Amino acid sequence: MNRVYNFSAGPSMLPLPVLERAASEMVSYGESGMSVMEMSHRSPDYETIINATETLLRKLMNIPDNYKVLFLQGGASTQFAAVPLNLIKRTGKADYIVSGQFSGKAFKEAQKLGYDVKCIATSKEDNFDHVPVVTKDMIRPDAAYLHICFNNTIYGTKYPYIPDTGDIPLVADMSSCIISEPVDVSKFGVIYAGAQKNMAPAGLTLVIVREDLLDYAEEKMPTMLEWKTMAENGSMYNTPPCYTIYIAKLVYEWILGLGGLDVMKEMNVKKANLLYDYLDSQEYYIAPVQKESRSMMNVTFVTGDADLDKKFASEAAKAGLKNLKGHRSVGGMRASIYNAMPYDGVVALVEFMKEFAKNNPKK
Amino acid sequence: MNRVYNFSAGPSMLPLPVLERAASEMVSYGESGMSVMEMSHRSPDYETIINATETLLRKLMNIPDNYKVLFLQGGASTQFAAVPLNLIKRTGKADYIVSGQFSGKAFKEAQKLGYDVKCIATSKEDNFDHVPVVTKDMIRPDAAYLHICFNNTIYGTKYPYIPDTGDIPLVADMSSCIISEPVDVSKFGVIYAGAQKNMAPAGLTLVIVREDLLDYAEEKMPTMLEWKTMAENGSMYNTPPCYTIYIAKLVYEWILGLGGLDVMKEMNVKKANLLYDYLDSQEYYIAPVQKESRSMMNVTFVTGDADLDKKFASEAAKAGLKNLKGHRSVGGMRASIYNAMPYDGVVALVEFMKEFAKNNPKK
Repeated sequence: MNRVYNFSAGPSMLPLPVLERAASEMVSYGESGMSVMEMSHRSPDYETIINATETLLRKLMNIPDNYKVLFLQGGASTQFAAVPLNLIKRTGKADYIVSGQFSGKAFKEAQKLGYDVKCIATSKEDNFDHVPVVTKDMIRPDAAYLHICFNNTIYGTKYPYIPDTGDIPLVADMSSCIISEPVDVSKFGVIYAGAQKNMAPAGLTLVIVREDLLDYAEEKMPTMLEWKTMAENGSMYNTPPCYTIYIAKLVYEWILGLGGLDVMKEMNVKKANLLYDYLDSQEYYIAPVQKESRSMMNVTFVTGDADLDKKFASEAAKAGLKNLKGHRSVGGMRASIYNAMPYDGVVALVEFMKEFAKNNPKK
Repeated sequence: MNRVYNFSAGPSMLPLPVLERAASEMVSYGESGMSVMEMSHRSPDYETIINATETLLRKLMNIPDNYKVLFLQGGASTQFAAVPLNLIKRTGKADYIVSGQFSGKAFKEAQKLGYDVKCIATSKEDNFDHVPVVTKDMIRPDAAYLHICFNNTIYGTKYPYIPDTGDIPLVADMSSCIISEPVDVSKFGVIYAGAQKNMAPAGLTLVIVREDLLDYAEEKMPTMLEWKTMAENGSMYNTPPCYTIYIAKLVYEWILGLGGLDVMKEMNVKKANLLYDYLDSQEYYIAPVQKESRSMMNVTFVTGDADLDKKFASEAAKAGLKNLKGHRSVGGMRASIYNAMPYDGVVALVEFMKEFAKNNPKK
C-alpha cells in the first residue's frame, strides 16, 4: 500500500494515524459493538464524541466562552447565504472584500438574496495576486459586518494580518487555513470553514459565532441555516454529519498530540519556506503572488508555458506527487500543503521541480 | 469484536460487509495511494465513484431518465425548506398531509417561509396511529404539489399505497423507507431522503426530481438549496459529501449483490412479519399502529406500563439489543429494522420479548 503525496486543494490529505485509527474502529468503536457511522446521534456514546470534539477544538483554537461552535452541513457555499441571512438585519447593509473566487461568490450570493452589499476593495484587476489592504475608514460605518476570505485557495494568497474593523463584526471564511496556525478568535465576529482541507472529509462545516450576533436572523429563512437554532440545539436540531465530526475529533487529537497550533504553525512555516525559498532562488518557475500576501497553505507557481505546466502536473503525478495542477480557472500549478502534508512531501516536490527544470529547458 | 443488534431509528446499522470493505480501503483506495476521504472531488478517481453511485441507484430503483438524481447535504430538514422554495412558484400554493412529527415540521417550515400551504388531512387526533386516506378530490386543484411523509419513523406507520394525485406532483419524504422495497418512481414528482437510515452514514441527502419541476425556483433563495443548480452541476456545485456518497455506493452494491429491491423487500417482509406476528399472537405487548398503516421499517410497541417499558429497553440493551427505546416524544419501544438489520436480530428480539414478558408479569 504505497501512499502518495496528495497536493489537492481539498478534499486533501488526512494524517495517516487518523486514517489508521478510523479503519481500526470502523466495525466496532470501543466497547460499543457498532461503527460510529451506525450510532444514534442521541446515544450517550455519540454525545460523548461530539462534546469531546467541541472541547478539543475550543482548546486547540483557544475559543472564548462567548463564542458558539457549530458543526453544520452544506459547505462554505451554504454559509455564503447564511451569513447575510443571519447578520444583515443588524443594520440592513454589509461590506465585502473580493480577494478571489470564493469571496466573489460570497458577495454575489448576498446580492442575489437582494441585500444592500458593497464590495469596498478587490484585487481583481491584478488577477488576485495579493489581498487588498483593509483599513477601518474604508468600511461603511453602518455595515452589519465586513466579510473577507482569509486564505484564497485558488490564488494562494492570505491576509498577513487580521483587519481592524473596530466595532463592525469581521466575518471570515477560513476554509483553507483553519487550524493551520494560532489565530485570535476574539478579533472576529464569525469564523466559518468547510472541513475538507485541514479538518476532516467533505461534508462538515464549522461555524464559530460570537453569541451577541445570534439575534439578527431573518424570520423567513430556512431553519437549517439559522445559527441560533443550531446553537440552541448543540448542532443537533437534526441529525448532524456524525462520522465526519468523529474524524475531525481524531484530527484535533492528532494536532494536540503534536503540541497544538504553535507547533503546527512551526511545521507549516518550515514546509512553506522550503518551497518559497526554492521558488525565489531560481528563474525557471514564477510565483505570481506578491510576497506579503503569500499563503502558507496553497503555493501557486507557473513555468510561463502552458504546455510545460501540463507536462509538469502529468509527470509529477507519475512520480507520486498528485494533484499539482492549478485550479481550472487560473491554470499553472498549485501545491496545497495543509497540516497533514508531511515535510518529506515538500522535499520530494522541490526535488522533482529541480529535475523537471533541468530536463525541460525552455525554448 | 462483538457486534450488537442496533435497532436505532437512524443513524442505524450498516451492512457488515460494507463496513469491512470501507475499513480495508480506508488508507488507500485501489491503486490510488489515498483514502476516498482525501480525494479531490474533481479527480478522475472520485468522478468514477460518484458516477457509479448514481448509476447503481438508478438501476436499483429503476429511476426513469427524465428524473435527476442529486446527492446533497443538510438532511431532510433542509428539504423541508427546499421543497417550497423550488416548487411552490408553479402555482403559488401547496398542500400537505400531516401524518407525524416530520411531516408536521415540513408543513410548518413552508408556513414559516410565508407560503400559502394547507394541511388537507392529519391523523394527529389519533396520535398518528395511521396514515390518513388521501384521495384526489381532497387536494386543491391549483396546488403546486402535495407533500407526504411516506414512512413515519417515530410512529411506525407507512402509506400502504401511493396516493393518486392526478396531475399534481406528489412530493414524498422517504427518509426511513428508501430502497427498502421497489417503488414506482414515476408516480412521484420528487422523492427525497436523508441517507442515515437505509443508505449511508448521516450527512448525505438524496433528492430525485422530475426534470420538468426544476424551473420554479424562487429567485431570492440560497443557491445551495436550488435543485436546478445542483442538477446542472452533477451535485458538484461545491464539494459534495464525498465519503458518505462512497459508502452509499457500497450499500447499493451490497443490495444489488443480494438480488436488488425485490429480494430486499422479501427479506424485510420476513423480518417485519416475524415481529408483527408475534405481537398479534399475545397480549403482553400492544402494537398501537392500525394494521393497514404498519411500517415494515419501524415497529412500535408498548407494555402499557411506562416503568416496564423503561426496564425493557434497559435490559434489552444489556442483552445486546440496542436502542429499542421509543422516540422521546412518544415513549414505549421502537424496533427499527432497516435493510441492514439481519433476520437473526429480529429472532433475538422476539426471543427476548418472550423472556421479558415471562419474567415481568404485569400487576
